[in-house]
Amino acid sequence: MTNIKLIIEYDGTNYVGWQRQKNGVSIQEQIEKAINKVTGEKVHLIGSGRTDKGVHAKGQVANFITRSTIPPSRFKLALNNNLPEDIVILNSEKVSDDFHSRYDAIGKRYKYLIYNNPIRGALYRNFAYQVPYHLDYKEMEMAMSFFIGTHDFMSFMVSKNNVRTTTKTITQTSLNKKGNIIFFTIEGDGFLHNMVRIIVGTLVDIGRGKIKGTSIPHIISLKNRKFAGPTAPPQGLYLEKVYY
Amino acid sequence: MTNIKLIIEYDGTNYVGWQRQKNGVSIQEQIEKAINKVTGEKVHLIGSGRTDKGVHAKGQVANFITRSTIPPSRFKLALNNNLPEDIVILNSEKVSDDFHSRYDAIGKRYKYLIYNNPIRGALYRNFAYQVPYHLDYKEMEMAMSFFIGTHDFMSFMVSKNNVRTTTKTITQTSLNKKGNIIFFTIEGDGFLHNMVRIIVGTLVDIGRGKIKGTSIPHIISLKNRKFAGPTAPPQGLYLEKVYY
Repeated sequence: MTNIKLIIEYDGTNYVGWQRQKNGVSIQEQIEKAINKVTGEKVHLIGSGRTDKGVHAKGQVANFITRSTIPPSRFKLALNNNLPEDIVILNSEKVSDDFHSRYDAIGKRYKYLIYNNPIRGALYRNFAYQVPYHLDYKEMEMAMSFFIGTHDFMSFMVSKNNVRTTTKTITQTSLNKKGNIIFFTIEGDGFLHNMVRIIVGTLVDIGRGKIKGTSIPHIISLKNRKFAGPTAPPQGLYLEKVYY
Repeated sequence: MTNIKLIIEYDGTNYVGWQRQKNGVSIQEQIEKAINKVTGEKVHLIGSGRTDKGVHAKGQVANFITRSTIPPSRFKLALNNNLPEDIVILNSEKVSDDFHSRYDAIGKRYKYLIYNNPIRGALYRNFAYQVPYHLDYKEMEMAMSFFIGTHDFMSFMVSKNNVRTTTKTITQTSLNKKGNIIFFTIEGDGFLHNMVRIIVGTLVDIGRGKIKGTSIPHIISLKNRKFAGPTAPPQGLYLEKVYY
């Protein structure tokens, strides 16, 4: 038995998300099907975490157990030959038997793209959040720093799922601008459901002047979803890297 | 009667190209339909030139004659409200009665994106040419300069259509690299059918070492399509700007 770790890039536009679902095709399902074609086995692919419908990945991680004797590094090519164009295996390697993509993840980095232009863009519609309003970039940058550190992020969570803890540590954030594209990155030890998208939605409200940048600590302290900004749409979000 | 000039951005992925065709939906048709919804008129939209299936535009230009009293600058918003997400009017304005998008164009700028990576990318499949081979960037850059000037570009044309002349003047080219994306731009007074894509295909062959960079003047002088490289695929090509 070999435990194979995959690094995966995907365009989430045409999928219901990472996780297998009854109502549509998932990325997990596509990769499991490709593994089945290559090995003849029905495997369960363990992802580092779910990504929602429309969310992209440049470095999702997943692992599966196989009896196949295919050299671990060859899975990359073999699976890519059996995957649709919008899912790509960037790397495949053998890992220790007890490696678990989800339980062993110690951190993640996400990127979020905002297309800030008075007119929507035809080329970015599936790959960025189109914000037509003027955004106060300096105010957003200032506000961002308040997320750094260990906080209870209950205000930035979609709903109270069965989560062990709502306390997470954000280690790094950055905001960059190139033309009318704003690149936001955030890194931390873990993220609650929709957390990055609610943070971005809040930052956009700050950029528009609807929320003051200095109010972030207060919003965090209220531990109530309704005080944060709206949930930014999925198509701007990219899971960039999972740390182990 | 008012002559309205439009500047248009589009994602060509889902269209048969700019020009109306029997076998599928064209960009021209979509915009003519939107004009019909807004004005009630059946207009003929004149484009600066065709773009092929899968080719994108960031600055296509087109004009049409209308009896409508809608203020010219309002057409932008009115048409965008009636267009699919992958076509956007960036600007609308009144121009002189005799303005003609195609006949009056004095130059064009195209951009071409190459995704140069051993593994295909899931996110660029419709927006760049995926080249897995190592490319000698310096050789490509050197070769590029030979296109500058006035030449008979018969070697870089898909077929001898009914063209007035195959002599064109290239005024500018550039090659830039960011990570594994190579950006090629080319500007000139006009381009033959598939000319940019054949130039790019030839540059890629030069980058791969299949053709010598210094052989460009000779290839041009042969005036024969078979001596140039292959036609690069459409999805890397963007019509950036039309000059008047």
